[in-house]
Amino acid sequence: MGLALNKMNMELILKTLDYTRVGILITDPSKHDNPIIYSSKGFTDITGYTKEEVIGNNCRFLQGEQTSNETIARIREAVTRKESIQCEVLNYKKNGDIFWNHLTIDSVYMEEEEAHFFIGVQHDITEQKEAEQKYLQSLQRIEELETPIIPLTDKVSVLPLVGEMNESRYHKMTTQLLQSLENTFAETLLIDVNGLTTYNEEIMQRFIELANVLSLMGTSMILCGIKPAMAQKSITFADRPTSKLRTASTIRAALDIASK
Amino acid sequence: MGLALNKMNMELILKTLDYTRVGILITDPSKHDNPIIYSSKGFTDITGYTKEEVIGNNCRFLQGEQTSNETIARIREAVTRKESIQCEVLNYKKNGDIFWNHLTIDSVYMEEEEAHFFIGVQHDITEQKEAEQKYLQSLQRIEELETPIIPLTDKVSVLPLVGEMNESRYHKMTTQLLQSLENTFAETLLIDVNGLTTYNEEIMQRFIELANVLSLMGTSMILCGIKPAMAQKSITFADRPTSKLRTASTIRAALDIASK
Repeated sequence: MGLALNKMNMELILKTLDYTRVGILITDPSKHDNPIIYSSKGFTDITGYTKEEVIGNNCRFLQGEQTSNETIARIREAVTRKESIQCEVLNYKKNGDIFWNHLTIDSVYMEEEEAHFFIGVQHDITEQKEAEQKYLQSLQRIEELETPIIPLTDKVSVLPLVGEMNESRYHKMTTQLLQSLENTFAETLLIDVNGLTTYNEEIMQRFIELANVLSLMGTSMILCGIKPAMAQKSITFADRPTSKLRTASTIRAALDIASK
Repeated sequence: MGLALNKMNMELILKTLDYTRVGILITDPSKHDNPIIYSSKGFTDITGYTKEEVIGNNCRFLQGEQTSNETIARIREAVTRKESIQCEVLNYKKNGDIFWNHLTIDSVYMEEEEAHFFIGVQHDITEQKEAEQKYLQSLQRIEELETPIIPLTDKVSVLPLVGEMNESRYHKMTTQLLQSLENTFAETLLIDVNGLTTYNEEIMQRFIELANVLSLMGTSMILCGIKPAMAQKSITFADRPTSKLRTASTIRAALDIASK
């Protein structure tokens, strides 16, 4: 601390604790059940509990049904061992609302008092958790949209692929495709690769595998929209006798093949 | 504060300030240029500046090129008026890295000293900002995927619509569609509404408007995959003489119409 601070009084420091907007609790483990001996204004703002309601009690009133038992066990063990711990835990406000608590607990030894104290600090990270949650949900929506299976006729469906194709997207696509075909069977599936921005031999190999799998399910696959560059890269696959893969220049041409 | 706290010493309180993991600065506006007189460990952890480096200086060293001038002006005004302020501001660490700072500044009057102090608290919310940013980007990606314009032949493109259609999506779709047609002109655009889960007369009216707009650009629009329920709801539009809208049961039938 700076020299100037020594001239300030205890009152300013205590006020500062209250202005941090984080919940601060100090507990005294030398007393029965490790009771709270200090609670900041931030703690009241986050949880709705007044200082009077929490002083003298153990912190466990913050836990509830949805609180992870595993996290509680980790906290207990750290407190028992007088070790520091950082964790994210679902806690409960006085009104029953839940909030995500980025909790840090530190064990502090005060020489003058020859005693240990615990300093617990609560950061309310509910907003961050919600943003992360919304992001994950939108990723799921993107996955769905990346595999749009469109029925053209009663017997023919088309899957237009747009953008980048990689191993991870291929696997998600296959899973979703097989699920979709289980629900609404298509005699012929046209996969339109015209909109793909990436293409290589591995992807071609994957499409051949996919055609074989679909064939087992009774669905015939036709790959449409192969660009000249793709065709050139796929020459090595042209004569494979095991391949169930058929190709067509456009969806229109594929429809003609399918109707024969 | 609880009774027990009075027995604790100043040292514990100061340690507690350091354990909050938020940056805490106290400044003294009675001195020239409102210098920092206290800096917490959390401030060093967030910014990389040691206490020695910041004590005696004004806080403005946190600002940089990308910091919003408007936000700085708001902070200055609040400080001048000795008012509290909360804001999100882009600040700079000692190593030049940026971080998002959820900053609160409070003006505190200490009666004993007959003086004002400012307590500034920095919460590093970079992670939250990043999660929000990623979410917004994925929303943009969803919008793109919701309007997949697929060229079937040189002259014909298809836009398969899947899921829910509402006013907001309709407008985004139209904007993207017109942009896309400007870049790659299609003589005929098939809009496949078979996958739409919502349908009403307003949407039908919108599609008629869209057909008229596309017609001005030289693109003929054919609506495909109209389900019986949709057809029934659209009877009132069947005889409109101004409508440029053509319909077909399936994409295949639409292709036949387009080739005539």
